[in-house]
Amino acid sequence: MTDILLRECDADGILRLTLNDPAKRNALSEAMMAALADAFAEAGRDPAVRVIVLAANGPAFSAGHDLKEMTAGRSGDDRGRAYFAKVLGDCSAMMQGIINCPKPVIAEVTGIATAAGCQLVASCDLAIAADTAAFSTPGVHIGLFCSTPMVALSRNVANKHAMEMLLTGDMTSASRAAEIGLVNRSVAPDALHEEVMAVARKIASKSAMTVATGKRAFYAQSEMTLADAYDHAARVMVDNMLARDAEEGIGAFIEKRAPEWQDA
Amino acid sequence: MTDILLRECDADGILRLTLNDPAKRNALSEAMMAALADAFAEAGRDPAVRVIVLAANGPAFSAGHDLKEMTAGRSGDDRGRAYFAKVLGDCSAMMQGIINCPKPVIAEVTGIATAAGCQLVASCDLAIAADTAAFSTPGVHIGLFCSTPMVALSRNVANKHAMEMLLTGDMTSASRAAEIGLVNRSVAPDALHEEVMAVARKIASKSAMTVATGKRAFYAQSEMTLADAYDHAARVMVDNMLARDAEEGIGAFIEKRAPEWQDA
Amino acid sequence: MTDILLRECDADGILRLTLNDPAKRNALSEAMMAALADAFAEAGRDPAVRVIVLAANGPAFSAGHDLKEMTAGRSGDDRGRAYFAKVLGDCSAMMQGIINCPKPVIAEVTGIATAAGCQLVASCDLAIAADTAAFSTPGVHIGLFCSTPMVALSRNVANKHAMEMLLTGDMTSASRAAEIGLVNRSVAPDALHEEVMAVARKIASKSAMTVATGKRAFYAQSEMTLADAYDHAARVMVDNMLARDAEEGIGAFIEKRAPEWQDA
Repeated sequence: MTDILLRECDADGILRLTLNDPAKRNALSEAMMAALADAFAEAGRDPAVRVIVLAANGPAFSAGHDLKEMTAGRSGDDRGRAYFAKVLGDCSAMMQGIINCPKPVIAEVTGIATAAGCQLVASCDLAIAADTAAFSTPGVHIGLFCSTPMVALSRNVANKHAMEMLLTGDMTSASRAAEIGLVNRSVAPDALHEEVMAVARKIASKSAMTVATGKRAFYAQSEMTLADAYDHAARVMVDNMLARDAEEGIGAFIEKRAPEWQDA
Repeated sequence: MTDILLRECDADGILRLTLNDPAKRNALSEAMMAALADAFAEAGRDPAVRVIVLAANGPAFSAGHDLKEMTAGRSGDDRGRAYFAKVLGDCSAMMQGIINCPKPVIAEVTGIATAAGCQLVASCDLAIAADTAAFSTPGVHIGLFCSTPMVALSRNVANKHAMEMLLTGDMTSASRAAEIGLVNRSVAPDALHEEVMAVARKIASKSAMTVATGKRAFYAQSEMTLADAYDHAARVMVDNMLARDAEEGIGAFIEKRAPEWQDA
Repeated sequence: MTDILLRECDADGILRLTLNDPAKRNALSEAMMAALADAFAEAGRDPAVRVIVLAANGPAFSAGHDLKEMTAGRSGDDRGRAYFAKVLGDCSAMMQGIINCPKPVIAEVTGIATAAGCQLVASCDLAIAADTAAFSTPGVHIGLFCSTPMVALSRNVANKHAMEMLLTGDMTSASRAAEIGLVNRSVAPDALHEEVMAVARKIASKSAMTVATGKRAFYAQSEMTLADAYDHAARVMVDNMLARDAEEGIGAFIEKRAPEWQDA
């Protein structure tokens, strides 16, 4: 049996998770979602992992939910209600697992990312796409609006851009996705892997404690009023100042030497 | 007496609402606001309407409130306070009527949209402008800050862009409006109508139940925390899965045939 | 002793605040933050001030907190906790003092704005940068995540753009900052001052009451739900309609003459 999610961590602490079900266009089957949720949770706990790159084998990054599997769930007295609630609940929890993971997650998007596959990209902290990649939320074509994908999509792009994707189901090119903020930028396909790794290595060279502190605070403060956000961020920063890595980092900066992180 | 708001619904279910008071630059007079509010409410209830296009006759899309009418309201012991409260309350309710309408609303912007006219464009789900269109919130020129227009404007564009429009009152070109997210895109004036109709027909071909479900969920979840938004969207999507049009749409997709929507 | 913050108000009511500690790259020392907080508070009360331009002497706009001063605070039983809490609390209050100041604040960014210096630009209502300016939140390099700067940054730019700046600490060029919404635009260095002054003079020519009303309402409504935002903005606009400057401004507009503001 082939592993549908490959995991490989390099010497720099960069964990590469590769969606590896190209025959199913890397559909987010129950098995794939469980593998992803487990991988993010485990990477969060593993001190050897500093940054996560989420990549995919095959021409599609991910086609979203496995519609045949979903349809097979239309059984029983409830016509599948309990099953659908479980699948969508698990999916939403997995997506939030990316946000809640203390390690930054970078999507390396080679191909087509649609529906929950587009949501997966939107949920990552950073995303870099090949010029040949494309994005859509096509549920409207099949009578099933991309309502959970839109939670992530609408937190990345402006309302009218999100609405156009959701209401038409049309494909958005990688360059357009970069313009509207769905990905950080698009690059030539040949350059994609090295571009992602350059960003990943840069982040991996920082204090993991500092990065985890900042990522957590970012999403927490984004849901607060300005005054509350400042109160929260100032408290976070005071604690950060007192941490060993900040003392070392600031000292190294003043002394013009390279810092040595405690967690390295 | 000429009708100030023309209504015409085609065979595809595309309702064209045309602001038709060009001599007053399609000002949002009390009569115009009432006509718009009524049209959105009625279209929301009418199963024959699937998509709404909001267009305008004459060189101005809409110049916003009718200042002469407003000024005539400065009477009585309260110097017009109750009257202004009614007009602005009615206007805000009409704008929110676009958001709350279960049918998508697309602005087809041929000319100048200013003050509450700009707000009208910002309030639509989608907006496509002619290259010759332009937008402004010029209340600051006349001592009356565009405070209600800014509610819609600031939910579409970044803070500094909104603030520049509001504080200077300057015109924003259609191409710049597209860059900052106020409209989806701008096109040559000759191409505008067909461009809007292509988007409208695409959306009109979808399941109306699905589109209504998704539009409602979009604006609801946008005001929630991430966790609440996911809970809400997952519940919406479970109900959507159990609806007849999703079963039909997914079945048609798997069987590689065109779906037949129940509501068609 | 040189004044670290120069204050100069011209005949149009444009107050120019100039960070004047170029040897320290205009670091936000305790003294600099206190001077800024005092200047914004005083300008808010001073009827002669209509618009504030925040500029800087020297090649750096501002390098953020004074790390040597911060490090010197690592003393006592609490290793500096109380001191850091005071410094970051004062800084956050100063930044919010820009938001709460009834006069618009325009950043004129000639050089590098980093960490809390970048936050200062993000906190201004408007910002125009020289093409040679650049922005970063580099705390991650020294183990101290730019958590308070990210409060302002993330309220200006999309999530993935903010995250890239915060996680990598990389410099963002002025033109890129304009693309992502951190500044309104970038211009040739030679044109910067005149560009800023043209915007400042435009705003200074408006009714100060109207501008103050609008600025306050902008930030207030931005934290509300759509329905609450409309209720609030409609109430603000009714009061605005009844103010003398709106009556004068609307009357002047209808009569096609220049308005004369009460507060001028």
